[in-house]
Amino acid sequence: MLFMVQMQVNIPASLDKNIADALKKEEKEMSQKLQREGKWRDLWRVVGQYANVSIFNVSGNEELHQLLISLPLYPYMTVSVTPLTQHPSAIAQVE
Amino acid sequence: MLFMVQMQVNIPASLDKNIADALKKEEKEMSQKLQREGKWRDLWRVVGQYANVSIFNVSGNEELHQLLISLPLYPYMTVSVTPLTQHPSAIAQVE
Amino acid sequence: MLFMVQMQVNIPASLDKNIADALKKEEKEMSQKLQREGKWRDLWRVVGQYANVSIFNVSGNEELHQLLISLPLYPYMTVSVTPLTQHPSAIAQVE
Amino acid sequence: MLFMVQMQVNIPASLDKNIADALKKEEKEMSQKLQREGKWRDLWRVVGQYANVSIFNVSGNEELHQLLISLPLYPYMTVSVTPLTQHPSAIAQVE
Amino acid sequence: MLFMVQMQVNIPASLDKNIADALKKEEKEMSQKLQREGKWRDLWRVVGQYANVSIFNVSGNEELHQLLISLPLYPYMTVSVTPLTQHPSAIAQVE
Amino acid sequence: MLFMVQMQVNIPASLDKNIADALKKEEKEMSQKLQREGKWRDLWRVVGQYANVSIFNVSGNEELHQLLISLPLYPYMTVSVTPLTQHPSAIAQVE
Amino acid sequence: MLFMVQMQVNIPASLDKNIADALKKEEKEMSQKLQREGKWRDLWRVVGQYANVSIFNVSGNEELHQLLISLPLYPYMTVSVTPLTQHPSAIAQVE
Amino acid sequence: MLFMVQMQVNIPASLDKNIADALKKEEKEMSQKLQREGKWRDLWRVVGQYANVSIFNVSGNEELHQLLISLPLYPYMTVSVTPLTQHPSAIAQVE
Amino acid sequence: MLFMVQMQVNIPASLDKNIADALKKEEKEMSQKLQREGKWRDLWRVVGQYANVSIFNVSGNEELHQLLISLPLYPYMTVSVTPLTQHPSAIAQVE
Amino acid sequence: MLFMVQMQVNIPASLDKNIADALKKEEKEMSQKLQREGKWRDLWRVVGQYANVSIFNVSGNEELHQLLISLPLYPYMTVSVTPLTQHPSAIAQVE
Repeated sequence: MLFMVQMQVNIPASLDKNIADALKKEEKEMSQKLQREGKWRDLWRVVGQYANVSIFNVSGNEELHQLLISLPLYPYMTVSVTPLTQHPSAIAQVE
Repeated sequence: MLFMVQMQVNIPASLDKNIADALKKEEKEMSQKLQREGKWRDLWRVVGQYANVSIFNVSGNEELHQLLISLPLYPYMTVSVTPLTQHPSAIAQVE
Repeated sequence: MLFMVQMQVNIPASLDKNIADALKKEEKEMSQKLQREGKWRDLWRVVGQYANVSIFNVSGNEELHQLLISLPLYPYMTVSVTPLTQHPSAIAQVE
Repeated sequence: MLFMVQMQVNIPASLDKNIADALKKEEKEMSQKLQREGKWRDLWRVVGQYANVSIFNVSGNEELHQLLISLPLYPYMTVSVTPLTQHPSAIAQVE
Repeated sequence: MLFMVQMQVNIPASLDKNIADALKKEEKEMSQKLQREGKWRDLWRVVGQYANVSIFNVSGNEELHQLLISLPLYPYMTVSVTPLTQHPSAIAQVE
Repeated sequence: MLFMVQMQVNIPASLDKNIADALKKEEKEMSQKLQREGKWRDLWRVVGQYANVSIFNVSGNEELHQLLISLPLYPYMTVSVTPLTQHPSAIAQVE
Repeated sequence: MLFMVQMQVNIPASLDKNIADALKKEEKEMSQKLQREGKWRDLWRVVGQYANVSIFNVSGNEELHQLLISLPLYPYMTVSVTPLTQHPSAIAQVE
Repeated sequence: MLFMVQMQVNIPASLDKNIADALKKEEKEMSQKLQREGKWRDLWRVVGQYANVSIFNVSGNEELHQLLISLPLYPYMTVSVTPLTQHPSAIAQVE
Repeated sequence: MLFMVQMQVNIPASLDKNIADALKKEEKEMSQKLQREGKWRDLWRVVGQYANVSIFNVSGNEELHQLLISLPLYPYMTVSVTPLTQHPSAIAQVE
Repeated sequence: MLFMVQMQVNIPASLDKNIADALKKEEKEMSQKLQREGKWRDLWRVVGQYANVSIFNVSGNEELHQLLISLPLYPYMTVSVTPLTQHPSAIAQVE
């Protein structure tokens, strides 16, 4: 089941730089693990923003929620979720 | 070069049904041609909306604009365009 | 899988009253059929509005989309969809 | 009498972690007590958010207000309240 | 139980003037009847707007909804409802 | 002359609790004095909010402004002001 | 007593040109009469808009409302009203 | 050339009171100097707000910008600028 | 003096196609005449929109207003105007 | 390829003045280097704002993103990006 997730990251200047760097490193590792598993299907940077547009391919609402709240940078994100489905004109089939 | 395009379609009730059906048919054909060419990379329906989320892979701003305004249903669409680029945590390379 | 769906209905004054009445009757029948099947889990009127707050219990995004666009009054609705999941403090289990 | 209440929780990073944990524990206990009493009729997590959608079943405006402002996390919540009533197509009767 | 109701009236230019005048006359009669009964507790015009701020004193959500949708001009109104309750600094008691 | 005033109070967590309590006490006293004088005609709590809806009956813009900025909690309020006047369907006369 | 009034005019294309021209002529005459009386203290065009920023000097809310709703183009205006008062740094005294 | 400027002032509680008082004193002096020169043509307080509506009469964009950014309280203001011009119904000529 | 002007064009489907075509032709001619005169300094299409971003170089507010309202498509435009001035880091001097 | 970029700068009062000054100096140098290279094609100040309107001429989305995030003041900016293209009425050709 596909969802578009838009994440805007806002790390406060008051966060210790070492902690911030560690969180970003863990975020990258977890993100890449989820990409390799096919759950984080697409990940793009929005030009000019510390933000991304992502497509998740998960079993449903519960799995998506658990993935998102376990992201190391989740406490510093504003997240919006848009459920997607097959478009009648799409030649590819939604997994 | 990748762009997210969000299209909301609003066909007025006053449009003749035959004309509307013809436009939808042409829209589907053109959309599928662009998908086969790899320019309309992804096309998903937004759940509960007469709207889509799309990813276009084009040579740049000019090509994207010409593609969008040539869509048969373009006069009935509200369109928003978000330029995308490589995300440093993405394992796939933006084409 | 649960979704909150908010529907705002706006039937244009120009719609023939007999057609409007027939659509409302069909809408009611379809709504009640879906309620009896357990898919339209809750349906409440918003005070002072021609609008409702609904909870749908469906297999996923695709089923929800098909249900919503098949509603007789769908062409006259503004719809928003919010995916829901188990709350850690809830004593009831999300079906 | 039914009300939809939407709560967005935003605990500041500056709040002592022990205090925050104690507040969350009290919040959960109070929430479950109100659920068992039937006053907090439904409680769902919004996917990807530290937020919930809730349905309260109370005697009226005064009782709802007293319940909400007595929640341990209330000082950290943004709350919106939507009065609900019987929908003419609903097969269940609003209590 | 008190509710603030804000009504913005927008009668389309296409509505026959005789019908509009009849509706306004009926609206005024019904409004004054409800005021005499104490249910429409206060009614003020917003300066410069075809809009009002009203305070309703009703038994609850259901009665308020029935009153509002029975107003002759209701089909031409945008309505918002705000539940009110006793303020701890108010010297008057909410009825 | 009547005005609707909506006040949203937001006392920062960093304000000393004794100072906050003293301000709230003074606010209550001043509010009740103005109510007894008939200048703060109505004061209601918005359900679920640290906010009120108020009706002021004052000699004009200048008196209203002086009253509002002299409130002890004014520095912590977001205020909106809506001028009101006689509604042609109201049975009570605006003072 | 001073009020800033912002008026956005939107005359529908469907209005007969002769009627529209007559309304504009009456609007101009009434506006200039009120300016000569000192009630419509200032009137400026917003650059690039069919809109104005105005300052009214009236006895209070009731007079302002009666003036505004008697403007010939009032049915085609979106109006917002901002009550003004003496600024402590102003060298001119508000009339 | 006329411009409407709207300034909302928000002095943070963390600013030293002596510094704040000195800034306000300088702001008042500079504001009154500009009023005497005819450049700050009008200055009004918005009722209930720490905000003003002002009319500036300057030689153009550059002079307006230099005046605004030189105001002592500028770092604590949210500013919006609306270019104005002669209204065809105005009896006064824009300087 | 420079201004950014953003124009969104919305020609209603009900406008006769010949009239619309004639207006577009006149708009193009007038736009190009103003560009050759150096008054309409820059004109760009917004990708995916029937809209433009423009830079005007004019003597002031009055000239800009007269130019904009004389555009043949002006009645079908939503216009916003942003006054610009020299940026301290710009190497080019604002004309 | 052209893009309009709007940057709003908000340097927190808590940032050390020497650091802020150093960042502004580096920002100016980098901005002028990019202007001389023709990549930052235009740079204007918005009147009354600590903000600019800029036109970038770059090879595409990726180059624009890298330029923007390398600006010394980027961490203190709110940025919006609008892709532009040739306007059919423009006499200049988009580079």
